[in-house]
Formats: sequence, C-alpha cells, structure tokens
Amino acid sequence: MATYEVLHQDSSSAARGGLLATAHGNIETPVFMPVGTAGAVKGITPRQLKETGAGIILANTYHMMLRPGVETVEKLGGLHGLMAWDRPILTDSGGYQVFSLSRLAKIDDDGVEFASHVDGARIYLNAEIATEIQNRLGADIIMCFDQCTTFGVDPAQLEKAVERSILWAQRCKQAHANCGQLLFGIIQGGTNLEMRTYCATELVKMDFDGYALGGLSVGEAHDDMIRTVTHTAQLLPEDKPRYLMGVGTPKDIIAAVRAGVDMFDCVLPTRNGRNAFAFTGNGPVRLRNSVHTNDTDPIEAGCECYCCRNFSRGTLRHFFNSGEMLGPILVSLHNLTFYQRLMGRAREALKNNKFDEWSKRIDY
Amino acid sequence: MATYEVLHQDSSSAARGGLLATAHGNIETPVFMPVGTAGAVKGITPRQLKETGAGIILANTYHMMLRPGVETVEKLGGLHGLMAWDRPILTDSGGYQVFSLSRLAKIDDDGVEFASHVDGARIYLNAEIATEIQNRLGADIIMCFDQCTTFGVDPAQLEKAVERSILWAQRCKQAHANCGQLLFGIIQGGTNLEMRTYCATELVKMDFDGYALGGLSVGEAHDDMIRTVTHTAQLLPEDKPRYLMGVGTPKDIIAAVRAGVDMFDCVLPTRNGRNAFAFTGNGPVRLRNSVHTNDTDPIEAGCECYCCRNFSRGTLRHFFNSGEMLGPILVSLHNLTFYQRLMGRAREALKNNKFDEWSKRIDY
Repeated sequence: MATYEVLHQDSSSAARGGLLATAHGNIETPVFMPVGTAGAVKGITPRQLKETGAGIILANTYHMMLRPGVETVEKLGGLHGLMAWDRPILTDSGGYQVFSLSRLAKIDDDGVEFASHVDGARIYLNAEIATEIQNRLGADIIMCFDQCTTFGVDPAQLEKAVERSILWAQRCKQAHANCGQLLFGIIQGGTNLEMRTYCATELVKMDFDGYALGGLSVGEAHDDMIRTVTHTAQLLPEDKPRYLMGVGTPKDIIAAVRAGVDMFDCVLPTRNGRNAFAFTGNGPVRLRNSVHTNDTDPIEAGCECYCCRNFSRGTLRHFFNSGEMLGPILVSLHNLTFYQRLMGRAREALKNNKFDEWSKRIDY
Repeated sequence: MATYEVLHQDSSSAARGGLLATAHGNIETPVFMPVGTAGAVKGITPRQLKETGAGIILANTYHMMLRPGVETVEKLGGLHGLMAWDRPILTDSGGYQVFSLSRLAKIDDDGVEFASHVDGARIYLNAEIATEIQNRLGADIIMCFDQCTTFGVDPAQLEKAVERSILWAQRCKQAHANCGQLLFGIIQGGTNLEMRTYCATELVKMDFDGYALGGLSVGEAHDDMIRTVTHTAQLLPEDKPRYLMGVGTPKDIIAAVRAGVDMFDCVLPTRNGRNAFAFTGNGPVRLRNSVHTNDTDPIEAGCECYCCRNFSRGTLRHFFNSGEMLGPILVSLHNLTFYQRLMGRAREALKNNKFDEWSKRIDY
C-alpha cells in the first residue's frame, strides 16, 4: 500500500480523512500527536496514553540528543524501547528547539553551533548530523533540519531562512539512511505567501514522504495562520500527508483540517493540564477557581476518561491547591482524551460527509 | 463475624495471620497501608494503587481538616468519594502532625492549640473535635487523639503525655458517634517499657476495636523499637488488631510482625520512590547512580509491576535526570508493589507455617 491514502475527501473544504502507513502500524488522519519531549508525555504512562486514544506520539530530537544522548537511547532499545511505546513515533529535527531554547553561537549556510540548555556545552548541528541522529533514535517519521524564524522577522532574514531550509532539506534527503523511516520536508516562510509558495514548490520537487508547515503558531493571528496554511496546503501533492507543527487550540486544529492538514502536535493538552486548565466542549474549566470548591461534577459530563469517571472538579481543585501530583496527571489525562475525541469526531464527520457542518461548531 | 480473627498463629513467634472486617470489606493481615496524606497517594491513581495489591490506605486527618476542610470533604462524597477509593481507609487523629508539622501555641489537659502549616491560622484540636472530624471524614478505621513525644524526651514529660493520651482516649471513645467506623486506641510511652505497660493496660480496659503503638520510629534504634513492640504487643488482647504507626523499612515491618503486629503504614515506598530509591529483595537500587546509564535491566527481575514490565533502569535514570514526572510515578509504583508483595509473602508463610524460616531472610 501507499504511505498515505486519502479515503474521504470533504466536498465543501480541503479537509480529508486518510490512512498513513508506518513501520509501527497505520494511523488514521486527521490525527493529533501528544508530545513526549524528553521521552515521556509528562506524567502519563504509555498505558494511560493508549487509553486516551493516542495512536502516534512525538519526541524531541534536541532533548534526546542532549540527554540521555543518542548512544544511550540506542542501548536502551531506541526511542520505542525507552518510551515503552509500540505504536508510531515522530521526531522533530531539533531545528525549532535550537532556535527557541538554546543560546545560539553561530549560524551559517552549513549549520548551527549552539550552547546546550542543559549544561552549556557547545554543540554543532547540521542537516547530516540531525538526520543521522534521527536515523539512530529510530522514530517512524523523521523531519528535515530547517531554520525557523521568529514572528515579524524582516523579509531579508525570512528569505535567507527559506533558502537555507531548502538547501538543508535536500541534504537531509541525501543523508537519510534508514529506509524504515519516513522523512518529511518542512516548509518555512512565515506568513509570506510568496515565500511559502517558493519553499513548497522546491520541496515538492524533492519528493518527500510528507510535508510539514513550520514556523507557524509563533505569535501570528489565527486568521493569518489559517490563510497561510490554506494557501500552502493546496500546493502540496494530494497523496502525501501534511503536518502543521506545534498547533494548537481545538479551533486552530479544526480550521487547519478544513484547509487540508492531516497531522498536528502540541503541548497544550499537557501543559494546560499541569496548570489546572481543562478543555471541554463548553470552553475551558479553570480548576483552581474557588467556584469549584464543592463542585461534584466531573470536568466534562459524559466524558469517558479515567479522570471524569472517578474525580470531581472539587477534588481536582483540592489536589492542585495541595500540590498533589494527581492534579496535573488527571487533568492532562482528560485534556489528552479531549483532543483525541475531537480528532475522532473530525474523522467520523469526514467519513459521514458531515465535516462542513460539524467543523463550524468548533469555536474554542 | 468478629471484627478481627486470628487465622494462623506462628508456632515460633508472636506472628499471626488474620482477617479484619471493615465497612468497606475485609483485609487480610499482616497488612501494609500506603499513605494518602492529603487525599492522594502521591502520583498514583486509585487504579494503579489497586494493581499494587493495596487493600487499605491511610489519609491524614490533620491535612484534610486544614485543606480542603471537613465540610468540603463531606460535600465531595466523604473520603471514599474524594479519593475515588472503594476499599477500606484509615485516618489518623491528627495528633502526630500537630506535634511534628505545626507550630504549637498551647497544650493543656484539654487539648492543643496550634498554627496551621498551610496559612498560620490558629486551630484548636482535642479528643472530641478530632473524633467528630474523623466521624465526618468517614474512614473505616479512626484513631484516638493522643499526645506524641519526641525521641529522648525526659521521663516527666513522657509520663505526662502518657497520662493525657489515656485521658483523651477515654474521651474519644465517649465522643465516637459513627458506628460504621472502628476506633483504635493509641499506646504511647516511648521506649520506656513501664510506661508502655501502664498505657496498654489502661487502654485495654476501655475495650477499643484495635490498638496502635504510637511514638515509635521517631529516632530510636531498630532493636529498641522491636524490644518495645515485643513487650507491648503481648499485653494486648489476641482478638484485636495491632497497628504499628509510621513503620517502616521491610526489616522493621517483618520484625514487628514477628512480635505480633498486624498493620503498618509508612511513606517510605512513595517518598523514596520520588527520590529515585527503589526497594528490591537484593537491597536498594539508587536510580540516579551513573552505573545505570545504559542499564537495560528492570529495577527487579521477575517483578510483575507495571514499571518493571515496561521500563529499564537506564530509562528511569534518564527520567529522574530530566525531571520527568514519570520517574517518581514509576518508582513509587514499584516500591508500593514491593511492599505489598512482601506482606503477601508474610501472609503466605504464616498460612504454610513457614514464617519463622522466611522472616529471618528479610534483612533490608
């Protein structure tokens, strides 16, 4: 079978439901990937994660290469062994974290030298090194090393970053040496549609297994993001998966599905969960709020997650107030379940040709 | 049936296996009770806790009365509802925490005024109030309000504390107004055997549902503790359960079982678990140790816990080094499983009349 197959094309938008084949099994799209930055989705065991409905998760190459290091990951059974996760995994290339987390020392057309956020060690990363590391970490899907730009960067810098991302994508493709892994190219260009067109066109020529949109959800308005996504997605081959990196809220995600995107990752469900912020179909519930002191309702009525089946809002508020770890754990579980349910409903709506109507109700 | 029944009496020691009946079911003894201080065993869901084999857990009256408060606990379904735990629960009386955690303001023969460690509020606790609070929290087993003493306290103070604990025990018994709960008396007296005899004799006259030994594991040597326990346990009626509060290491526990104790609670499995210290039959494993960097072994070979079935020592070390919550969670799970397995083996040895031989091998 092909790597990716569109099974349901929405008639009134670019949204599609599909099936993505990987070395660790097939994934129905559109799909949300929980983030296991350093080899663990924070506070959530793999068993709990499966129960939320997660089919594919993400780990960060930048974090894993710094600690515990690629040799140790290999010795501990690769990413799948270390994470005790037998379903698909995607690794990013480290590019985003190099630009957001580390102190940059030097960047040129070859690559980037930076200081580790863990111990300050000087580390060099380029297309070949990032690809080799990902080959060795052993995820099912790996990403090209790219240069991210910040929101509002000047046009000359944006163009330079796009040129480098194209150059580096070509080198990643050449360096890629693990045929069990899919390699995705990353399209940069900020909210500049011309730059996006240029980058997408060049990357499509290289024929990647899938295409990601990077450099979004970095501060631009929702409408600017969706305009950029809508413009770029239509430039991509229909028979390849499309991944919007680091996005986002339920509203962001469903709008991007309408624009034809298939894959998403975001720390929102877990990060917000750790901060007592719960997602529901009626908008957010902030569990530290004193209105929940004696609240016997679950976070969301009808939710089948372990948290909602067993714990009241009042108890969760108490856990957060007392600094009990169960608060962050349980609300992360609920939020992850909420995101998976959202994506499941999107897939269901696509199958039943009801996506247009359904998607317009997602406004949170 | 009786509240407590001895089913297996060891022929070469005071150890016994028995069955304790409570409103939420029967408990086989000797038993270890994980500690859910503020309404949660730290980082462990009730489902995970059941899988460790836990049959009865403990919560601290002191913590629950301060936060979220007894009214809120009642509104959230009592302790069982709040903790999402449908098996037996035991609450201590708050006495120990008043003396160990709070700033004492005043103590007299009636009770104790102290400053809350949460917000400094002045709070008054005495026999009647502590009993009423526990009646309302709704645990299956509640404890008398007692005066704890520190290790090495002078004899006059020790005697005063024993006198008060006897006086308060009588008042707790009179105040106790929830017939669905068992009430245990607490024997104080430090390592002074005369004081222990006096306190035990007076409490036994009052005919409690069970008897606890308090004021141990507060700094005295293992042998002094066991000498005190051995002396005191033999003064207690055979047909009532005996509970050694706040103890301890596997070696402490099994030595106390030999002395005739049936019930134990301790934070060691969870507190040590959060600090990367794992219990095994071959002694402790300190998971931060660099020797475990590439260690693919589980914490303990043959252990059936979720942690040992899925995670290597190397991965756990990585989680602790990276500050990932899964480290504390998984090692707490292992340690709780280890303690339950230890108690299960003690019960098995008692059933098969092999306790003497088995217990002599527990030296960690």
